Amino acid sequence: MLDVIVVGAGAAGVGISAILDDLGVDDMLILEREKVGTSFKKWPKEMRLITPSFTTNFYGQADLNSIMARSSPAYFLRKEHPTGKEYAEYLKSLVEYCNLPIVEHTNIEKVTYSKGVFSLKITNGKELRTRFLIWAAGEFQYPNMTVFPGSELCLHNSKVKSWKDVKGDEHFIIGGYESGIDAAVHLSRLGKEVYVLDGNAPWGDRTTDPSLSLSPFTTERLEEEMKHGRINLIGKSKIKKVSKKGDEYLIEIKGKSKIHTSKTPPILATGFKSSLTLIEDLFEWDKEESYALLNEEDESTKTPGLFLVGPQVRHENLIFCFIYKYRQRFGVVANAIGERLELDTEILEYYRQEGFYLDDLSCCADECDC
Amino acid sequence: MLDVIVVGAGAAGVGISAILDDLGVDDMLILEREKVGTSFKKWPKEMRLITPSFTTNFYGQADLNSIMARSSPAYFLRKEHPTGKEYAEYLKSLVEYCNLPIVEHTNIEKVTYSKGVFSLKITNGKELRTRFLIWAAGEFQYPNMTVFPGSELCLHNSKVKSWKDVKGDEHFIIGGYESGIDAAVHLSRLGKEVYVLDGNAPWGDRTTDPSLSLSPFTTERLEEEMKHGRINLIGKSKIKKVSKKGDEYLIEIKGKSKIHTSKTPPILATGFKSSLTLIEDLFEWDKEESYALLNEEDESTKTPGLFLVGPQVRHENLIFCFIYKYRQRFGVVANAIGERLELDTEILEYYRQEGFYLDDLSCCADECDC
Repeated sequence: MLDVIVVGAGAAGVGISAILDDLGVDDMLILEREKVGTSFKKWPKEMRLITPSFTTNFYGQADLNSIMARSSPAYFLRKEHPTGKEYAEYLKSLVEYCNLPIVEHTNIEKVTYSKGVFSLKITNGKELRTRFLIWAAGEFQYPNMTVFPGSELCLHNSKVKSWKDVKGDEHFIIGGYESGIDAAVHLSRLGKEVYVLDGNAPWGDRTTDPSLSLSPFTTERLEEEMKHGRINLIGKSKIKKVSKKGDEYLIEIKGKSKIHTSKTPPILATGFKSSLTLIEDLFEWDKEESYALLNEEDESTKTPGLFLVGPQVRHENLIFCFIYKYRQRFGVVANAIGERLELDTEILEYYRQEGFYLDDLSCCADECDC
Repeated sequence: MLDVIVVGAGAAGVGISAILDDLGVDDMLILEREKVGTSFKKWPKEMRLITPSFTTNFYGQADLNSIMARSSPAYFLRKEHPTGKEYAEYLKSLVEYCNLPIVEHTNIEKVTYSKGVFSLKITNGKELRTRFLIWAAGEFQYPNMTVFPGSELCLHNSKVKSWKDVKGDEHFIIGGYESGIDAAVHLSRLGKEVYVLDGNAPWGDRTTDPSLSLSPFTTERLEEEMKHGRINLIGKSKIKKVSKKGDEYLIEIKGKSKIHTSKTPPILATGFKSSLTLIEDLFEWDKEESYALLNEEDESTKTPGLFLVGPQVRHENLIFCFIYKYRQRFGVVANAIGERLELDTEILEYYRQEGFYLDDLSCCADECDC
C-alpha cells in the first residue's frame, strides 16, 4: 500500500508532490491521465497566464506562477506572461529536476474508500491502494456545456487551438470574465468584430480579488484593443437560450426581446465543470452544490485522508483559483500528511516564507483601501 | 523634540511612515525637498516600473509595487507596469488616506548628531531635533556625471522628459542594464538607430536577481524591438573617455582602437550617486566606499538612531534596490523604533505576512534551480 497518491500532474499536482518529496514522503505516486502539463498545452495558442511572473524568489515571495520553491517561470522561461505551452515546459522541468514518480497515460476509473484505505481502479483494471489521496486534477478538460439550453451548440473557448483557426468575421462571446475577454482581444486583433455578452458587466468592476474582476493584464489589453472599435461589450445579458435556424445561431437574452443572430457558433467562455465528479460522494457539498466542503487542512469533511489541492479549493468566500493562491495551501496539506506520517515538518517554515504555506486565512480576501 | 523624522516622501519614505503611523508613532515629520513622489514624476514619460503589479494582496504577498499594506497600484491604477507619473499618484493617494504629516518644499542643509539627538538645519535656517532619523531619500535626483572622463558631456537618462524630445537619428547609449535598455527600446520605437555600449553584456545574463540581470519585462520588450534591426548591443565596451570634436562626440573604448563617433550626445545610463552625501560621516562604509554599513536593524553601525530605508539598503551581497525587496525591511526598522519607543509591535506580524517584514535574511539572494 502506498502512503500517498496524487491525482493529476498539472500545476497543483506537481507542486504538492514536490513539497511532499522534499518532506521525505517515499511511497508516493502521481497519476496523470495524459502527460505532465497536458491541460496547459491544450490552451489556445495565444492564451497566456494572466498573473505576471517575476524573479522575486528568495526575498519572501516566490514568482507568482511558481509552484515549487527555488523555481521561477520568469527565470526558467524569461517570460512575464508564459503561454500554456511554455508553462507546461516549466512543469516538465520541475518533474525532471525532482525526479518525481509520475505515471502518465493512466486513467482512474473508480475510487472507493473503506476503513482508512483508498482503492483506485485504474487503466487496464489494475488496482492501487493508498492511505492518503490528494485530488489535484484540474478543470480545464471538463468544459461545462450545459450552462443554458443550447449551450452544446456553442464552441467552448477551451476547445480552440488557435484563434486563427476560428472562421468568420463576426463573433458572439458568452461570458465577459478573463477567458471571454481573452477571446475577444485575440479575435479583434485578427480584425474581427466581436460582441461579448455577460449577465453582469465584469469588465467594469474593480475589486482586489482577481477571482472576481479582470486582472490589470487583461484590463490593459482590452483598453488597447477597444481603440480599434471592433469589440462591443454588452452587459446585463444573461443568456436564455441558443438555437440554430438554418445556418444561423439565435441567441436569446433573458428579459430582452431582441434576439442576436450569429453566422458563427457562439463562443462559450463561462467556465468548467468540477473535476470531482468521480469522487463527489466522498465529499459533503455546500448548499448550492458548487464547491466541496473542506476542513482547515483542506481535507474532505466527510472522508478523512482525502485532500483537495488546486483551483477548486474554496473556503466559503475564499476562492483559491489562482496559482499564487492555491499554492499557499500546499504547505497546509503537506503539514497534515507529514505529521500523520510522523515526518519532520520543520522545513515547511521555509515554504511559509516563500509563499507556499498560509494556514491563517483570517486576513484573506479583504479589499484594498487604496 | 520629535520622535522620528523621515527624510524623503518617495516610495521608501511614504512606506516607512505609513507603517510607523500604524504603529502609533505620533511625534513624526516627513521632510520632502519637493513634493510627494516628485522623483517618479521626473521619470522619462515612457518609463514604467519593471516589476509587475497584481492584486495579490491578502493572500500572503502584497502587490509587488505596493509600499503599504492594504494598498495596491494594480488596484488603484489598474495598470501592470505603472509609469512614474502614475506611481506618484498612487503615493499621493496613500499620503492622503493616512493623513501623513508631510512637510513639502523643505530642504535639509545640515545634519548633526550629538548624545542621542539629531539636529537638522532646514530651509530658512530653522532647526528640527529628533531622536530617530530615517533616511529615505532616493538617488534619482543625483545622476552620477563623473563615471569616466567626459561623462559630463553626456545626456543622463534621468534628465530626459520624453524620448520624443531627444533629437537625432542615431544614438549611443552607455550602460546596458535596465535604464539603458529602456532608452534603447523607446528610441528604436521612434525609428532611431541605437548602439548600446556596456563593459559586460548584461542583456545575455540570466540570474534570479533582477538587481543583476534584466527583468522579463525588459527582456521581452528588447527581443520584440530587436526584430526591427535598429538596436545594436555591443558588449565588452568599457568606456575610456568621451570627448567633443566640432559637432561630434568621440567615444573611446578601453583596450579597443576603434572610436565611435556620434552626432548626438551619448546617453548616460550608468546610474546614480548616493543620496547619502550630506550624512556620509554618520556612516561607516564598505572597503570600496560603495555602500553604508548597517546593523541587522538597518541602523548605521556608527550612529545609533540613524536608519536607512529604500533602494540604497545593502547587506553585503544582498542588494535591496527593488520596491518588493526594500519594503521587506520596513518592518525591521519599524520594530526597532517601536520597541525603543515602547509601543506595542504586535501588528507587525500582519506586515510580515503581507511582505513588509523580513528579518531573517539567511535565505535571500539564492539562485533558482529551475
